[in-house]
Amino acid sequence: MNFLEEKIQADGVIKPGNILKVDGFLNHQIDIGIMRQIADEIKQRFCGVKVDRILTIEASGIAIATLVGDLYHVPVVFAKKSVTANSTDEKYVAKAYSFTHKSENQVLVSKPYIKAGENVLIVDDFLAEGEAAHALIDIVRQAGGKVAGIAVCIEKGQQNGGKMLREEGYRLESIAIVDSMDWESQTIRFRAKN
Amino acid sequence: MNFLEEKIQADGVIKPGNILKVDGFLNHQIDIGIMRQIADEIKQRFCGVKVDRILTIEASGIAIATLVGDLYHVPVVFAKKSVTANSTDEKYVAKAYSFTHKSENQVLVSKPYIKAGENVLIVDDFLAEGEAAHALIDIVRQAGGKVAGIAVCIEKGQQNGGKMLREEGYRLESIAIVDSMDWESQTIRFRAKN
Repeated sequence: MNFLEEKIQADGVIKPGNILKVDGFLNHQIDIGIMRQIADEIKQRFCGVKVDRILTIEASGIAIATLVGDLYHVPVVFAKKSVTANSTDEKYVAKAYSFTHKSENQVLVSKPYIKAGENVLIVDDFLAEGEAAHALIDIVRQAGGKVAGIAVCIEKGQQNGGKMLREEGYRLESIAIVDSMDWESQTIRFRAKN
Repeated sequence: MNFLEEKIQADGVIKPGNILKVDGFLNHQIDIGIMRQIADEIKQRFCGVKVDRILTIEASGIAIATLVGDLYHVPVVFAKKSVTANSTDEKYVAKAYSFTHKSENQVLVSKPYIKAGENVLIVDDFLAEGEAAHALIDIVRQAGGKVAGIAVCIEKGQQNGGKMLREEGYRLESIAIVDSMDWESQTIRFRAKN
């Protein structure tokens, strides 16, 4: 097991309905040491890949995106899920279905903040059905940018997002891939050789 | 002018209605170099103050809170504005009126993520009327913690938040305080000796 798999095993909580609760270190309370290690690992896995910009989505992608951006010394942009009152810039808009909230949401990025020709690394905390990742890919394409790759902290391997993105030819790096979870025994199986 | 005042002067846009648009470097696109400088400055201003935890509020506080937490090597918690489907922990709940959206919102933190006796540094990107800061203070108190201080990137000095917090005895450090803005001439006056 790598450091993140060990952390998930130690501090993650499996809940009924195939839910993995990791808000003690990833997406409510943030364990900066682990997040820094994840950022280092992402940069290492994308060694040799040109990255001009980091793109994530609010809110829980922002912490890891910030630390990755700090390593690359490139701008970080977080896509918004609603129109901000103070912004009158034209927006790139994509749609993402939320399986958690059972509704279709807009994903927005102000046009000045992605430029044509840029190599954009998409970063997020979780990958499940891949709705957010596909919305961000759509926005990069609308802007005339290139998707340098997709990096996520935890991929839920039983859901379709990772499989789809790999089949579509994207370079996807998930620092931990959870292939199955058992609520009763509180055990997690990770994908080997990840 | 300090580095942030210079950045605001160079890249901020004043819009009608006393609105300062800084989403090119602070709260949509993030200029990591400037954010890192802000984090360093915050730590320097709170030199000698014990900090066990950083508390912010989603979404645009997360980037600066992450970088400050990285300097202190302490956990970062971001308060949420809505109940998360996957969390069944009991919550500390406070109320904050949003002047932007003209509605009262809940601010929530899961109880395990602030502990009694901890010294909590509240960090945010903006301070205007102080509604978010007061909600976070309320949550720290509910948890039996102590407010080590409040650090914000930009304080809108014409609004009441900063004045109230200082009168209440909190140590507030705002890296830039905008005392007035003029839309027609696009000029900004910063509070001197900040």
